[in-house]
Amino acid sequence: MSLLQHLGWRYATKKMNGDVVPQDKLDYILEAARLAPSSSGMQPYRIFVVNDKALQEKIKPIAYDQPQIVEASHLLVFASWDGYTRERIDTVFNEMISQRPNSDQEMVNAYKERLWSLYEPLGQQWHAQHAARQAYISFGLAIAAAAEQQVDATPMEGFLPPQLDELLGLKAQGLTSVLILALGYRDTANDWLVDKKKCARRKKRSYNMCKPVFP
Amino acid sequence: MSLLQHLGWRYATKKMNGDVVPQDKLDYILEAARLAPSSSGMQPYRIFVVNDKALQEKIKPIAYDQPQIVEASHLLVFASWDGYTRERIDTVFNEMISQRPNSDQEMVNAYKERLWSLYEPLGQQWHAQHAARQAYISFGLAIAAAAEQQVDATPMEGFLPPQLDELLGLKAQGLTSVLILALGYRDTANDWLVDKKKCARRKKRSYNMCKPVFP
Repeated sequence: MSLLQHLGWRYATKKMNGDVVPQDKLDYILEAARLAPSSSGMQPYRIFVVNDKALQEKIKPIAYDQPQIVEASHLLVFASWDGYTRERIDTVFNEMISQRPNSDQEMVNAYKERLWSLYEPLGQQWHAQHAARQAYISFGLAIAAAAEQQVDATPMEGFLPPQLDELLGLKAQGLTSVLILALGYRDTANDWLVDKKKCARRKKRSYNMCKPVFP
Repeated sequence: MSLLQHLGWRYATKKMNGDVVPQDKLDYILEAARLAPSSSGMQPYRIFVVNDKALQEKIKPIAYDQPQIVEASHLLVFASWDGYTRERIDTVFNEMISQRPNSDQEMVNAYKERLWSLYEPLGQQWHAQHAARQAYISFGLAIAAAAEQQVDATPMEGFLPPQLDELLGLKAQGLTSVLILALGYRDTANDWLVDKKKCARRKKRSYNMCKPVFP
């Protein structure tokens, strides 16, 4: 099956049946998320895996009581950096150099300096927004990987980040929660959305030079 | 080949050879982008396809002279809504109802009202950020689809949105450019990045309840 077929199969599952996602499929989905591109390869986010019913019960009211929070086998919580710092940039590039021992150290240093001179004046709020955006690319790839593995997923922004950050101790780690991906299996008999026609808007097939594709 | 294998194959191509991406592959990539989930299914962005060398030459200086802008076969310009309005929300849900004739009109209206009452007080700047983030999910799926089709792609944020908006007439359409995906084929002999080890950071394999996956 092709990616398009997988994407046609998936939908934002509204009710899950509690079945458990096997470890190898979970690993696969996380690996796809890990391979996502990000600006300058910074990967300015972490993904937390929650699979503990008591913790899921505590997250539920923070996420407007959406039932999938508890029905899901696992929750992936995407939490992005609260900002860029010299130290964080150093950490990333030092790891890169350790994995690419023949790197041109001078070129890498010049790149790092240019990056920081670009980022520093933009301020912490811009940094946090920029870091959060990178997490969405990874989120997209996790969604694609779940669909390929025939694992259902509910992409969620509907929760209160400050409360989730508090519960998971994210703030102290310089992180803020931006997205949840609930992973599990659709409850076909009880999910009102399961049989609804997909409504992604139609593409204008006649696009050409600089014509919008949709809507 | 699996999605993971495709993601292992891809990289942010730094030099392209000018070869043309066939129409069916371009359509495929755009269809994956179209099928991306977005908050409440709003798809608050458009994708513009640029494949005109003269226009690409004009975009190049706006994108810090990155050579792929002109070497690419096509540029996909992701441009997100500058904000949510009642009218835009209506348009989306009216189209949904037209595609799902058995929708519960009252339920849809209640949902729309709730959505607007949530969005309105958050203000235009929040709206624009939120809309932009949705485009990143679609961007992620376009990247995955390109890799599956063995089309190279360079994800780009490095350009000046106000100038690109001006050139493409986006502002008048209530849009602002957020991302460019350059599509084409790697120039294997001349791309310094082509043979470099992928440096996505290592995953801690021992994660469990609420442990970060990476890094």
